[in-house]
Amino acid sequence: MNKVITISREFGSGGREFGRRLAEELGFDYYDKEIISEIAKKTSMSEEFIKEVTDKKPHNLFPITFGHTFIYIDNYYPLHQANDIYIEQNNIIKEMAQRSNCIIIGRCADYILEDKDPFRIFIYADMESKVKRCKERAPEGEDLSDKELRKKINSVNKGRAQYYEYYTGRNWGDKLNYDLCINTTNANIKELVEVVAKLFK
Amino acid sequence: MNKVITISREFGSGGREFGRRLAEELGFDYYDKEIISEIAKKTSMSEEFIKEVTDKKPHNLFPITFGHTFIYIDNYYPLHQANDIYIEQNNIIKEMAQRSNCIIIGRCADYILEDKDPFRIFIYADMESKVKRCKERAPEGEDLSDKELRKKINSVNKGRAQYYEYYTGRNWGDKLNYDLCINTTNANIKELVEVVAKLFK
Repeated sequence: MNKVITISREFGSGGREFGRRLAEELGFDYYDKEIISEIAKKTSMSEEFIKEVTDKKPHNLFPITFGHTFIYIDNYYPLHQANDIYIEQNNIIKEMAQRSNCIIIGRCADYILEDKDPFRIFIYADMESKVKRCKERAPEGEDLSDKELRKKINSVNKGRAQYYEYYTGRNWGDKLNYDLCINTTNANIKELVEVVAKLFK
Repeated sequence: MNKVITISREFGSGGREFGRRLAEELGFDYYDKEIISEIAKKTSMSEEFIKEVTDKKPHNLFPITFGHTFIYIDNYYPLHQANDIYIEQNNIIKEMAQRSNCIIIGRCADYILEDKDPFRIFIYADMESKVKRCKERAPEGEDLSDKELRKKINSVNKGRAQYYEYYTGRNWGDKLNYDLCINTTNANIKELVEVVAKLFK
């Protein structure tokens, strides 16, 4: 049976870099945005739309009707689309786990693969450290204040928590859902991965 | 500078066994009940009393007076005794960390040694696993039902949480207070320690 490591991570904690480096170190396949691309290939939806839907809790939208015209409110989408995406994501993640030793980032993979007993990691850090990391890695042209960054970090993490809770019925970040929780506050991710990789060798 | 690992642990999670075996594996000194014995040596209090006081939140007892007689309620003790013990514990833990590479179990050592940057581990497990472990290791003559064990586990852990919160102002078990949180649900502690020890070699 393939070895599968799932990584859930707080936005700004360096979890994605941690996962990518750990996959390199172990020679495992690495799936993150690749999951979005595969869902897009299998559905008629754009990667952008799928990303948006899988970033937060689905909204059940009852369209407003004006006479015979349905009107959807901006930024909302019908629940069935979110569920279609989740089902596709479910199948793709199971296929990936079947294919090879791999690391899967986010997207409820710890829950979806539960019967395959993956090794479940949660990566987190304190707020100061998350703000610092986001600043260092800000996309060109983004110049948010610390206050704005804290707001953004909280908002992204709230979305992840709600999405996870909606589809798994569990609390995102609750220690009991993971085998190992790793604090990356003040850590050098590259050095940290070299140490953590030993656990799997 | 000596390497210091602090281990906080839920009652029933196997954290003490984990710490003892990890110390053996790494050749580190191991301090658990030894802390109580040293406090007893340095104060005029019995080990039993010290253990009781350091197991839960200190109570500030205003003695009830009947005429000129003070009456203390059973199982309560004056707050200053709890604080005296905490101060002694503080000194002893700092001395231990100064002495050699070591592992220290519980007793707010992660907080007390904060400026020495210890590696802080939290050991936890799900309730079913904690009940199972307590059953396997029950003292002779103890034959508690699952329900009674759950109650005991919750009560001990509540005491630890309150004691920790009282002296550190932090939430016991909150991921952010630890570098690594390890879930021992269904784990064989001996095998787990062999893997985790690699992190420190």
